[in-house]
Amino acid sequence: MTGSGPHPAVRSCLVVGTGLIGTSVALALRAAGVEVHLTDRDPDAVRRAAQLGAGTPDPATSQVDLAVVAVAPSATAEVVTGLVAGNSAATVVDTAGVKEQVLGTVRQALGETPHFVGTHPMAGRERSGPGAARADLFEGRPWVLVPDGADERSLRRARALVELCGGVPLEMGAGEHDAAVALVSHVPQVAASLVAARLAEGADAALPLTGQGLRDVTRVAASDPDLWVDVLAANPSPVAHALTELRADLDAVVHALHEVHDDPEWARTALREVLVRGNAGRARLPGKHGGRSTTYALVPVVVPDRPGELARLVNDVGASGVNIEDLRIEHSPGQPVGLVELAVAPASAATVAETLGGLGWVVHPGEA
Amino acid sequence: MTGSGPHPAVRSCLVVGTGLIGTSVALALRAAGVEVHLTDRDPDAVRRAAQLGAGTPDPATSQVDLAVVAVAPSATAEVVTGLVAGNSAATVVDTAGVKEQVLGTVRQALGETPHFVGTHPMAGRERSGPGAARADLFEGRPWVLVPDGADERSLRRARALVELCGGVPLEMGAGEHDAAVALVSHVPQVAASLVAARLAEGADAALPLTGQGLRDVTRVAASDPDLWVDVLAANPSPVAHALTELRADLDAVVHALHEVHDDPEWARTALREVLVRGNAGRARLPGKHGGRSTTYALVPVVVPDRPGELARLVNDVGASGVNIEDLRIEHSPGQPVGLVELAVAPASAATVAETLGGLGWVVHPGEA
Repeated sequence: MTGSGPHPAVRSCLVVGTGLIGTSVALALRAAGVEVHLTDRDPDAVRRAAQLGAGTPDPATSQVDLAVVAVAPSATAEVVTGLVAGNSAATVVDTAGVKEQVLGTVRQALGETPHFVGTHPMAGRERSGPGAARADLFEGRPWVLVPDGADERSLRRARALVELCGGVPLEMGAGEHDAAVALVSHVPQVAASLVAARLAEGADAALPLTGQGLRDVTRVAASDPDLWVDVLAANPSPVAHALTELRADLDAVVHALHEVHDDPEWARTALREVLVRGNAGRARLPGKHGGRSTTYALVPVVVPDRPGELARLVNDVGASGVNIEDLRIEHSPGQPVGLVELAVAPASAATVAETLGGLGWVVHPGEA
Repeated sequence: MTGSGPHPAVRSCLVVGTGLIGTSVALALRAAGVEVHLTDRDPDAVRRAAQLGAGTPDPATSQVDLAVVAVAPSATAEVVTGLVAGNSAATVVDTAGVKEQVLGTVRQALGETPHFVGTHPMAGRERSGPGAARADLFEGRPWVLVPDGADERSLRRARALVELCGGVPLEMGAGEHDAAVALVSHVPQVAASLVAARLAEGADAALPLTGQGLRDVTRVAASDPDLWVDVLAANPSPVAHALTELRADLDAVVHALHEVHDDPEWARTALREVLVRGNAGRARLPGKHGGRSTTYALVPVVVPDRPGELARLVNDVGASGVNIEDLRIEHSPGQPVGLVELAVAPASAATVAETLGGLGWVVHPGEA
C-alpha cells in the first residue's frame, strides 16, 4: 500500500460474495490500487458494497488475475468449480473455514486443480453484511493457504492476496488445516456448549455461585447455533475424531470418580493424569503476537464500580511507565466494587503494586 | 464494623488453620472487635498470622462463641469432630468447598450435629498462606451456609460470621450445594482440562490458529492438579452424575457427526439441539452484581501495543461519561496492535463509538 500501483501478481480481482469477508477483501484490494469487480446473488449486497468503495458492481468482461470466493460454506465448492471451469480468473481462491470438503468436491468435478488455492482468513468474530466490512479486517490475523494441487503461479497470487490484506500467511495441507481448526475452534465450541447445556434446566441454586471460570468456559456457548451446525457439518471427521479422544479421557475421569471410595490411590492418580495433561496443553497456547505463552504477573486491584475509576487506574499504571499486557474485570455479586486484574511483565509487578498502593488503590497480593 | 463493639452473637472466635481463608476471617473479625484466637499445626503460620494482627497465637482457655475450621479439606471433618466433642466452641463452622462429605463424617462420629454449620465462602482465586490474607477477601462474595441439622443459635452465629466478613449469605442443603458446585465449578474445570489435554501432544500446526475462544475455554486448565484432585475426590458423585449427563450429549454430537453424510437432515437437527441448549444455559448465568445476565453492547477499538495507549483509550471513554462494564484485550499474532473490546450499556454504544472515532480511534462496527 505504498501508492506505487497494484501488486504485479494481482492487478484485477473478482470478489464473489459481498458479505463481511468479501467486502473487506475488496476494500483492502481497492486501497492497494487493484481493479475490483463485485458479484453476489443478492443485488442489494453488491450495491451496498460498491457504495462503500469496494469496487465495480459488475462481473469483469475479461479474465481477472484472481477470483476470491466468499460465499456460504455450503455454496463454496460449486461457485469455485464454475469459476475455474469458466476460466473467469487465472486463479481462484475460496475463504471457507473448512478446506478438505471444498477441495474434494472441486476435484471431483474438475480432476486436477492447479488454478485453485483453498484459503482461510482467521478474521475475528462473526458479523455479517457488507456494512460490517473494513479494509483492515485481516490486519495481523493468520490466513491459512492450502497449497494442495495448486501451481506455483496460483500460489503466488494467493500469497499476494494475503499480503495486500495485511494478513499473516500460514501454509498447510487441507487435512492438517481441518484437524487444526477442529482442535482450536470446533472442539472448544462443542465443549462450551456441553457445559452450558448442563445449566439450561433446573440448577437454580447453582446459578448464584457462578464464578469467572464458568463464564470463561461457556462464553462461546452463546454463539449462533445455525452458523455452528454448518461449521461442524462441514468438518465431521476431524471433529468426531478429536471428540472421541476427548471422550476417552472423560470416561477415565468418570471411572476414577466412581472408584474414589474403593480405590482412592488409583482414582487420584487417574484424575491427576488428565489434569496434568490439561496443564501441558494449556501451556502450549501461543501468547500475544503469536509467541510462546508468556507468564505475566497478575496485579489484582479493587476498583469501585463508578464511571472514571477504571480510567483513573489505567492512567495511574500508565504514569508509572508500565505496559498493561492484559486486563480482566472480575464481577462481584452484590457489591459495588470489582476486582481488576492487571497482567504486566513480571519485572514490573512490584513497581505497579507499590505505585498503586502509594496512590491509595487497594492492591491484593499477587499470584504466581 | 461501626465501632460499636463486637457482634452480640460472636464475641470470641477460635480460628483453626491460619492459611489464606482462616487468616482473612481472623482479620475481618478482629476489625469488627471480636476476640480472636489462632491455631495451626504449623507454628510459623500462626506466628505470621498473629504478626499481621489476626489475633492471639494461643487456643482460648474457655469456650469461645465460634470456631472457624479452615484447614485442608481432607482434615476438616476430623478437626470439626474434635472441636464439637471437646466443647471448645458453642458453634463450629467449617469452610471446605464440598459439604456432604464433611457433614457425613462428623455425623458418623457424633450422631446429631446441632452445633455444627457447614459453610463455603466463595473467595476468589486460590492463593495460599497467611501472607496472602486480607480482611476484605470475602467482601461481596457469596458465602454458602448449610443449615442441615444445625440449631437456630448456631445458625445465627454462622450468619453473623458471614455478615462480619462482608460476605453475601446463601443458605442451601449440603446435597444442593455439592450439586451446584459440581455444575458451576467442577464440571467446567474438567471440561477445560479435557479440551486443553487435546493440545498436549502433536498439534503443532494447530497452535498458531489459536483464538480467544480456545483461550477462554481452557483458562482454568492451568489450575493446580493436586488441588483439583482433592476437590474432585471430595465430590465424586455429583461430579460423576453431571459428567455422565454431559457425556450423553457428547455421544449425541459424535453420533450426529458420523451421520452427516448419510442422514444430513437428522444429523443437523441433532447438532443444533445441543447448541441451542448451550445457548439457553449460557443465557441463565448471572451478570455483574448477581443480577440476570445483561447484554452489553461491544465496541471494538484498535489499540497500538504501546505503554499509555490503553490508558488514553479508557480516559477518552471516561471523558464521555460512559461507564466501561467490561473490557477485553484481544491478541493479534504478529502485529503490534491489539483489539480492545469495550462492553458498555447498549444505550451508550453509539456515543462511545462516535466520541472515540472523533478522537482518531479506529472503532470497528459493533456486534449485537
